[in-house]
Amino acid sequence: MKFSNLLQYFSPKEKKFYAIFNSAVANILETSNELVSLVNHDQVEERKTIRLKIKNLERQGDVFTRQVFDELNRTFITPFDREDIHQLASNLDDVLDLMNGCSEKIIFYNCTTFSTNMREMAKNIHKGCNELQKAVVGLEGLKSPENIMKACEEIHAIESHGDELYHMAISHLFENEKDAIELIRQKEILRMLEKACNKIEDVADVIKTIMIKYS
Amino acid sequence: MKFSNLLQYFSPKEKKFYAIFNSAVANILETSNELVSLVNHDQVEERKTIRLKIKNLERQGDVFTRQVFDELNRTFITPFDREDIHQLASNLDDVLDLMNGCSEKIIFYNCTTFSTNMREMAKNIHKGCNELQKAVVGLEGLKSPENIMKACEEIHAIESHGDELYHMAISHLFENEKDAIELIRQKEILRMLEKACNKIEDVADVIKTIMIKYS
Amino acid sequence: MKFSNLLQYFSPKEKKFYAIFNSAVANILETSNELVSLVNHDQVEERKTIRLKIKNLERQGDVFTRQVFDELNRTFITPFDREDIHQLASNLDDVLDLMNGCSEKIIFYNCTTFSTNMREMAKNIHKGCNELQKAVVGLEGLKSPENIMKACEEIHAIESHGDELYHMAISHLFENEKDAIELIRQKEILRMLEKACNKIEDVADVIKTIMIKYS
Repeated sequence: MKFSNLLQYFSPKEKKFYAIFNSAVANILETSNELVSLVNHDQVEERKTIRLKIKNLERQGDVFTRQVFDELNRTFITPFDREDIHQLASNLDDVLDLMNGCSEKIIFYNCTTFSTNMREMAKNIHKGCNELQKAVVGLEGLKSPENIMKACEEIHAIESHGDELYHMAISHLFENEKDAIELIRQKEILRMLEKACNKIEDVADVIKTIMIKYS
Repeated sequence: MKFSNLLQYFSPKEKKFYAIFNSAVANILETSNELVSLVNHDQVEERKTIRLKIKNLERQGDVFTRQVFDELNRTFITPFDREDIHQLASNLDDVLDLMNGCSEKIIFYNCTTFSTNMREMAKNIHKGCNELQKAVVGLEGLKSPENIMKACEEIHAIESHGDELYHMAISHLFENEKDAIELIRQKEILRMLEKACNKIEDVADVIKTIMIKYS
Repeated sequence: MKFSNLLQYFSPKEKKFYAIFNSAVANILETSNELVSLVNHDQVEERKTIRLKIKNLERQGDVFTRQVFDELNRTFITPFDREDIHQLASNLDDVLDLMNGCSEKIIFYNCTTFSTNMREMAKNIHKGCNELQKAVVGLEGLKSPENIMKACEEIHAIESHGDELYHMAISHLFENEKDAIELIRQKEILRMLEKACNKIEDVADVIKTIMIKYS
């Protein structure tokens, strides 16, 4: 019996997982939006406000992750493999943590200059989170597996593009930046942005694993 | 049957685990003490002597970790889940490794300045190790689960405080340090101290998992 | 029945694993050779060419890793524990990734100076990969377990030597390098070389685990 045929038998308990994942991914999308905003604001006070917003979103994300783990402990039948649910939740949490880490470094490192490459990387992460939402939301009901796979492919391309942006940014930095402390600042933030982008692909990989098992 | 009622039936083999863990955590506490001493000594030769002491403590810790793993392979019945024993031993080993890493960096990076924040972070780690000892030693016999949980809560607060200290120290560094090489030194050591402090909480989390399962 | 006596019954499918591992480790050895070459070339254009070669070898390595995972999914009976095969493949992949990471950093960081210590570290990695090949190739047929164990011991010594080289290099750097950006470059590349060397020992550890189980 196909996964899609099973769906009609889902108990409300199982549906809870989808509800939490949908909230978690909406929270991530909002965070990525704030991250783009953060690297596009010239005033330090505005950046500090945005950073606090991101911190709150990160805390909210922790609540969702804990809810998934609690449901896993309470629920016998899960919509897909327990291990995959666990992986999905913890990778989503990692994406959020890394975006929060970016925003922390920007503030604590006293970062004031945001290069075009850095802004592009933040925008690229936001695009990735957008596709992530499509993929995660699609899991419930599985009405259009093709759309989920398409979003995952898109994320793969976004990650590759992110890699390129990162390499360009790092090369540019080591060629042109003469102020060592400024180089440290930029280098560390770029690396954190790259990590966040990579992690989005890890989520997509978990989703692809789920798709392969159930379709 | 409660975990505490089971204890009377423990074979000497099972008791071995507690003995090793108690030695491991005493070793860790001693190391944290040396770490505090390290960042409070002005003479480089004294620091080198302390660093060698820490290196030896780290090697002794490796012996304890190996003993736990050997016992796990030899023993059929263990006082708690094999996986939890494994996690506990390897997380304790990580705490030790990270403190050793701090002391290595201080020497190899030729670090000579120790800020108040850095000293506070080392002291905070030492406090964490102190609570860690209470929690680990309490596992044997489980006479006072409340005290174990209290120590874990304390560790949680210590980790939060460590985070704050770290953020303050990093912000202060990027605002005030004009010598880039000095900034690199301090930044890397602060990060290592923060990692060590975080890892103490990972141990506490394993202990909490054990407590939840058996009480 | 001993592992060696079992070998005659191996189906062609199981032999596939050895073939893939042999290709993977030959690929790694070639990469380590290119890495030595990379830090011994004075011309940036030559270095860029070598870096592209390494990138291609890394992609080829990904193919081998995927082949192992695909075979694991397809094959019911494996020459040794599935988990160990998985670990072996993924650790080999990590060795390759880290060497590729070294070469990337050398190019993107615009690194032009290669210290004696750095060259020694690259040579040491190459020696480690050489021993790795002996150990991995020896797994098929297991005709000489002593040689496999000898190669693993050798890798252990190589890793210790690598640690010493790394510490010497880092100490030397922080004592003598006055240009902060150059210090960052060298420091990061040294750390990556050290990581690659450590990872070779992780592979040796997996091989030792396999040997202990089956001999």
